[in-house]
Amino acid sequence: MYQAPVEDMKFTLRYLVGLERVAAIPGMDMVSEDLVDAVLEEAGKLAVDVLAPLNHSGDIAGSRRNDDGTVSVPDGFVDAWKAMAEGGWIGLNSSPDYGGQGLPQCVSAAVNEMWNASNMSFALCQLLTQGAIHALEVVGNEEQKLTYLPKLNSGEWTGTMNLTEPQAGTDLASLRTMATPNGDHYRIKGQKIYITYGEHEMSENIIHLVLARTPDAPAGVKGISLFIVPKYLANPDGSRGVRNDVQCLSIEKKLGIKASPTAVLQYGQNDGAIGYLLGEEHKGLDCMFLMMNSARYDVGLQGLAISDRAYQHALAYTRDRVQGTPLQGEKGQPILNHPDVLRLMTTMKAEIEAMRALLLVGGGALDLAHGSAGDDDGFWQERANLLIPIIKGWMTERSLVLTSDAVQVHGGMGFIEETGAAQHYRDARILPIYEGTTAIQANDLVFRKTLRDNGKAVRRLLTDIRKDMDDVASAGENLVTVATEMNEATKTAEAALEALLARANSPRDAASVGVDFTMLLGYLTGGWQMARASAAAGRALAVGEGAPDFLRAKQATTNAYMAYCLPEVDKLAAKVWKGPDALSTMDPDWL
Amino acid sequence: MYQAPVEDMKFTLRYLVGLERVAAIPGMDMVSEDLVDAVLEEAGKLAVDVLAPLNHSGDIAGSRRNDDGTVSVPDGFVDAWKAMAEGGWIGLNSSPDYGGQGLPQCVSAAVNEMWNASNMSFALCQLLTQGAIHALEVVGNEEQKLTYLPKLNSGEWTGTMNLTEPQAGTDLASLRTMATPNGDHYRIKGQKIYITYGEHEMSENIIHLVLARTPDAPAGVKGISLFIVPKYLANPDGSRGVRNDVQCLSIEKKLGIKASPTAVLQYGQNDGAIGYLLGEEHKGLDCMFLMMNSARYDVGLQGLAISDRAYQHALAYTRDRVQGTPLQGEKGQPILNHPDVLRLMTTMKAEIEAMRALLLVGGGALDLAHGSAGDDDGFWQERANLLIPIIKGWMTERSLVLTSDAVQVHGGMGFIEETGAAQHYRDARILPIYEGTTAIQANDLVFRKTLRDNGKAVRRLLTDIRKDMDDVASAGENLVTVATEMNEATKTAEAALEALLARANSPRDAASVGVDFTMLLGYLTGGWQMARASAAAGRALAVGEGAPDFLRAKQATTNAYMAYCLPEVDKLAAKVWKGPDALSTMDPDWL
Repeated sequence: MYQAPVEDMKFTLRYLVGLERVAAIPGMDMVSEDLVDAVLEEAGKLAVDVLAPLNHSGDIAGSRRNDDGTVSVPDGFVDAWKAMAEGGWIGLNSSPDYGGQGLPQCVSAAVNEMWNASNMSFALCQLLTQGAIHALEVVGNEEQKLTYLPKLNSGEWTGTMNLTEPQAGTDLASLRTMATPNGDHYRIKGQKIYITYGEHEMSENIIHLVLARTPDAPAGVKGISLFIVPKYLANPDGSRGVRNDVQCLSIEKKLGIKASPTAVLQYGQNDGAIGYLLGEEHKGLDCMFLMMNSARYDVGLQGLAISDRAYQHALAYTRDRVQGTPLQGEKGQPILNHPDVLRLMTTMKAEIEAMRALLLVGGGALDLAHGSAGDDDGFWQERANLLIPIIKGWMTERSLVLTSDAVQVHGGMGFIEETGAAQHYRDARILPIYEGTTAIQANDLVFRKTLRDNGKAVRRLLTDIRKDMDDVASAGENLVTVATEMNEATKTAEAALEALLARANSPRDAASVGVDFTMLLGYLTGGWQMARASAAAGRALAVGEGAPDFLRAKQATTNAYMAYCLPEVDKLAAKVWKGPDALSTMDPDWL
Repeated sequence: MYQAPVEDMKFTLRYLVGLERVAAIPGMDMVSEDLVDAVLEEAGKLAVDVLAPLNHSGDIAGSRRNDDGTVSVPDGFVDAWKAMAEGGWIGLNSSPDYGGQGLPQCVSAAVNEMWNASNMSFALCQLLTQGAIHALEVVGNEEQKLTYLPKLNSGEWTGTMNLTEPQAGTDLASLRTMATPNGDHYRIKGQKIYITYGEHEMSENIIHLVLARTPDAPAGVKGISLFIVPKYLANPDGSRGVRNDVQCLSIEKKLGIKASPTAVLQYGQNDGAIGYLLGEEHKGLDCMFLMMNSARYDVGLQGLAISDRAYQHALAYTRDRVQGTPLQGEKGQPILNHPDVLRLMTTMKAEIEAMRALLLVGGGALDLAHGSAGDDDGFWQERANLLIPIIKGWMTERSLVLTSDAVQVHGGMGFIEETGAAQHYRDARILPIYEGTTAIQANDLVFRKTLRDNGKAVRRLLTDIRKDMDDVASAGENLVTVATEMNEATKTAEAALEALLARANSPRDAASVGVDFTMLLGYLTGGWQMARASAAAGRALAVGEGAPDFLRAKQATTNAYMAYCLPEVDKLAAKVWKGPDALSTMDPDWL
């Protein structure tokens, strides 16, 4: 049922990211269109043939904790993990020095989209493992890298992130898990909740990365350190050793992603779990933020993935279901030909392609930042830092609406669980919450990425959009309108930026417009990429390059984006302008 | 946990609907503030004390079909129904001639909001029964009225609507259930799906109203008749008689409203179920549309109700949960003081109060239409007809977002089913689907309510809004801005109307903008009522009438509506203008 959107990914990587630019990064010279084609085709097969068929059955079965404290995942998951691991997919974007494939983020993101679209609950295990690999690569010492990375890259072991405690969710300053020094290691005691794949039997070991406090640590976030706490300790020869003192107390009963076990983990029911300091003491939050950037990017990616899956589900139904006779149409035509269904499906397609373009361009920015020789004056790191809260915030919020629209076109069938559309709607609901709620993304965008540099990074972004629109306008008659509309929206965004900067001295006002500002930049940057895509499609058509129908569809989809999605920019700007004054008249006691 | 919003209902009925105007309708002279207060207070108690505590447990238990074909509802439902019936609540707005209470729609709607907010799954049985009562009142003959209405009004029997068949959802023209004449009755054979409370044991009998075709009927919708098909036939003395030939084959496994049984009903497994013609032969759809108007109004009401329940749930959490220190706030303050949470909760409150105002004003319009002595030139019927698709479309679509926002402020807790927030999110998802999807409401609004009279009814509405804004602007300095913003939005709506009228010769274009046009009028009419409410609050404050905090809150809430909700009007108008041309470039094969 799921079809891997390989053609659109190739188009986006070629024309919007620019593979030659990525291939010019030191160590990335293996990147070529042929390689990318091969990788995407292979991944698409695994996603379609192996992962997708386990999605609905996995939702029904769910994960469950057994009486002995082990956790069973749904049927088929163990074999699917094996297939993914054997294909070398786990460490696709990690360092070849420790068993990774070393592919760039922009390619790995396209592959990850397929895993998450075909089976988001399953793919979470791989996302978390990639996150752990990333953290170890950046702050691990050589011994730690040699001990854990090859096993994680091979998928023999998997990884988790342990942040949340019952009293410490968004506010990590209040976490209480203790790590007491004990020779060359620490003893960890405390409870962690919402640990994705915190316990399961898909791999022979689980490497938990755990935030905890040392006894003498200062209060607040500056006293937090990061620890490696394996479920089974590693033997000196690298094999799996004795069981550590960490137990799964329970598995949450959730609204969605039911196949993925979300564990409550108890560290140190006995002597304390053995943990090893990762990075410097009291620098745990910094280390975690290194992972967080890529984790947030990945959750934004999940927003795109679940939206596309829901869209495809809905599309198949609307092509198949006959109900009534479409206006000015013929009897027996499917409901896709009804004007409102066509409008909904077209709008979904437009947003999904905009998301994909922004995601992969963002991945390219991460690659360029990572591979920078310092000659870009920090530009690509700045750009990636700016795009990440937009990608996470905008794509996950929109996934709620897109999966909802996919239910809607099913009519009454959409509300019946057997149809499968409702699962995507339920699954998506976690995305604007975990790895930092949308409000947290907005705070990051407003305070760290906008007010701190007095709007410089955002202005540079807007300038780039304008520059690109000059190019877009020159790509054909039909693109002049697109460029004009984008230029107007960019002007509106500039005004919204100025309005936000004017609130710099009133942090509460600034914070209150953050989500609207984030969404505004999401719609704007989505339009930016669609405009570029339409221009590229027009030029390809002109020279007879590529599949004409795909290229014409890209132009029509861009037109739909401009008509149905871009008007959100004006609306959101109005909220940024008017919101704080209205909100200031509201007393919380009146709610 | 649930608190009945009695104060806001009283305010709305008094200042926005105008109880004296309702009391002037023939037969409505018992309506007074005292009566309304008493009714709302009593209903509030039943909702809070009896229905609300069964909501979450009902969701967990669900309804289930037993092997003998009976259906069990969750624990507590049978007693709750008894309490509701004994309180005289079932026939609250039906004719006193047959055991109803004869209260106006605007009061009954306020009461129904409480039932649906406290327990939507439970309240559905009462809504459907009221719908059946309404149909029998309008098209039943005297014998039918005497046989069924007293039992339905007393809650001893309940009612259902049977429209949908597997191949006939939105398109009733294709329904196949047959009704063959047999003496003074008909024999019914066919299968009906999605029958809410189609089988249960809360009442001793169920009166199904069933759409079916007679053997000689013309094809399409003009060949459909409506039948009364009781689960148990009525004896001549009015008591329950022998079992009819209708069976519950199964109960759907749904995304939400799990406590309410959604049945597949088989009529005529043996000789055919005995049915009695209701209204004229081949006029079934007209009869059904008489019920439909009130059914659609009721579903719009459910959108408001579930939104308020979710809001209250979220509010309690945000007042209780301490996490981080709000900007410029003090340590230990709850998350409600975080600017973005305050913004979300304030926006929710604003939309909910706008919905409630529009709903009750729409109820008043129905009352005035119903009680018209013909001296209004059909004005109130026109107004009610215009408002109903807006109420149904706008309020149910928005309930998806409001219940989603309520999940969001819970953070990770919102995704855990035990918290209860997720239930409202799941429950709400059916609302934009049943009783006609949003696209169907939009078609009704565009073709029957706008294009057919060349925009006259919509223009009259916009003129009334302008007129009211003159009055609003005169109510105080702070209301001039509100009136100005509303006047601008009204002007935008006028332009959108002209754009729609200009598409009259292209039905596909007109249909494609229908949902956006419906939502636009929803936001506009919501703002209309909030502006009126703020003016009334200002005047009450000036003369020292009413609770000052409630009135100040009403003004602040109106300000929030203008800042956060009204900007949707511009956006939706832009989509109305730009949409069709963009959509016309999309080939369905390209999706």
